[in-house]
Amino acid sequence: MSKPLPHKIAVMGAGSWGTTFAKVLADAVSDQDIPVQIWARREEAAREINERHTNSRYLRDTKLPTNISASAQIAEVLTGADLVVLAIPSQSLREELAKFVQYFEQDVVLLSLMKGLERGTDLRMSEVMAEVTGIPADRIAVLSGPNLAMEIAREQPTASVVACSNAQTAHWIAQLCSAPYFRPYTNDDVLGVELGGIVKNIIALAVGMCDGMGMGDNTKSTVITRGLAETTRLVLALGGRLETLSGLSGLGDLVATCSSSLSRNNTAGRLLGQGLFLEEVNDRMSQTAEGIKSARAVLDLSTSHQVDMPITESVVMVLEGTLSVENMAERLLSRELKSEGELQK
Amino acid sequence: MSKPLPHKIAVMGAGSWGTTFAKVLADAVSDQDIPVQIWARREEAAREINERHTNSRYLRDTKLPTNISASAQIAEVLTGADLVVLAIPSQSLREELAKFVQYFEQDVVLLSLMKGLERGTDLRMSEVMAEVTGIPADRIAVLSGPNLAMEIAREQPTASVVACSNAQTAHWIAQLCSAPYFRPYTNDDVLGVELGGIVKNIIALAVGMCDGMGMGDNTKSTVITRGLAETTRLVLALGGRLETLSGLSGLGDLVATCSSSLSRNNTAGRLLGQGLFLEEVNDRMSQTAEGIKSARAVLDLSTSHQVDMPITESVVMVLEGTLSVENMAERLLSRELKSEGELQK
Repeated sequence: MSKPLPHKIAVMGAGSWGTTFAKVLADAVSDQDIPVQIWARREEAAREINERHTNSRYLRDTKLPTNISASAQIAEVLTGADLVVLAIPSQSLREELAKFVQYFEQDVVLLSLMKGLERGTDLRMSEVMAEVTGIPADRIAVLSGPNLAMEIAREQPTASVVACSNAQTAHWIAQLCSAPYFRPYTNDDVLGVELGGIVKNIIALAVGMCDGMGMGDNTKSTVITRGLAETTRLVLALGGRLETLSGLSGLGDLVATCSSSLSRNNTAGRLLGQGLFLEEVNDRMSQTAEGIKSARAVLDLSTSHQVDMPITESVVMVLEGTLSVENMAERLLSRELKSEGELQK
Repeated sequence: MSKPLPHKIAVMGAGSWGTTFAKVLADAVSDQDIPVQIWARREEAAREINERHTNSRYLRDTKLPTNISASAQIAEVLTGADLVVLAIPSQSLREELAKFVQYFEQDVVLLSLMKGLERGTDLRMSEVMAEVTGIPADRIAVLSGPNLAMEIAREQPTASVVACSNAQTAHWIAQLCSAPYFRPYTNDDVLGVELGGIVKNIIALAVGMCDGMGMGDNTKSTVITRGLAETTRLVLALGGRLETLSGLSGLGDLVATCSSSLSRNNTAGRLLGQGLFLEEVNDRMSQTAEGIKSARAVLDLSTSHQVDMPITESVVMVLEGTLSVENMAERLLSRELKSEGELQK
């Protein structure tokens, strides 16, 4: 027997991705009379969504569907919601969840859109969700893929992956977010999907740095190739699957992020490659690039599992000021002549 | 005992890639007194290389090293050459080799830079070389990787793969083309390296078509991801290795070709996506895109091995006029909701 449709969907977070995904959901369920409600931290943002159907701070030219409402009241948004989508900054998830948890419905399903590793604990977002809420893994899912929010907001054809250890839950969510321009596939390798989305931000920083130093597509493609190889090594060491990394949430997301000038991580890397200091880069950007915040936690995770991640290590050294970007490029490209197989190990 | 250095290196073909790779070789062996000679079909091209050290038709701003000479006489170029690099149009290889073969030295090693499948026979270039010359596989190698010629000519840092069934031969060639800006790795999976380089041109046509129709990086990354998956299926069915396709000559070359406006295949696809007919596209381009010539042969090869290659099939249909680019996009993106694993099969 398949799971019944939800009575209401809540999207926690009114940034560019949360708002865009709320639009995907609202378009997907528009003829099923399921309300979609966004929780916005700022009252003005909630009011703008309700009154003008826009979120001009993050999505300038997008008109949101009228079946989306918003509120700054956590209790109001979560009450009655059987599906709760989490799209808040990764490093504040634990703290925010502690406020949300009392309002969760009994059988609520959580879906993470977040791409970070918690500093200090090195936990993935789905792991933080399980730890804080006690909700079992079969009701915790993640969504990841080649999903630049701006393009989805413009209804450009996009594919994505919903991952949950329970195939029925993954399928239920995939149906709820299947819009004419948004096509979700399912996967049960939560760890592989989630880590692919996290590490790609760090590789995008490295590719951005190469770009900022004036290097071409040959170099950048080499960094992308080796970046996917080191991500795959980490995922395999932790029990995820190779095929996940070859799919939309691995390779697909990595290529989209590294190709696009819309990517914050790519942009931050480019500014670092042009010689700016990290503080200057953070000052210039309205939202901090996720890779900058997660890089150290990913390196710690790889170290504790004895996985060699030379690109991630170099990015961390640049971010922490112990390696110049010029020396990073040299470090990544100058290796002994050897067989390609040895390199991939 | 390692193989002695060659007395002379011949590069057959003075197009952009042949000329650029001659420069790589000349820079790599510059302190070893090994002459590098290019065979140019046109007398004027040979004269320009000898007198002005330029090849202005293909590499406008590049000054060639002075240890490169050129000639339009096949006998002169091949005599005394222990390494012969082949960089001529794929579809004329058989015919040209028949003229070359009488001048080959006894133990000559052949290296293919070509990226095509022979029409009619569906043979790879290394297979045509073996068939026409009778040279054994341990003296036939191929080179492929994320190698946009223009970037290498400008000495941008680049990595590549030399593949030969004989590891010693591969290593010998890798040493001969290892320049400060060009880093070759070795691999013994000739089939995987060669097919990766061929099919990527067809995927680049598809990505170019999406681009020409105004689609964004989400869509293009999805086509790249599925394109690598179908290439991998073909290579595995024919006995090549998965790791090869995850490496520089598979993923790396695919990403470089699909990202770059310097790629002829990407450009041709973009013009088709903008609504031009194939004849108009060919008229506009100085060299025909290799993917246009190989697509049908790749599809035939996949059919005879019962491998599903939906992107290649769609590109062939567009090129042969049985599918519009608009319908191609729809055909590629509209599939039933299913698990990602099923999709990769």
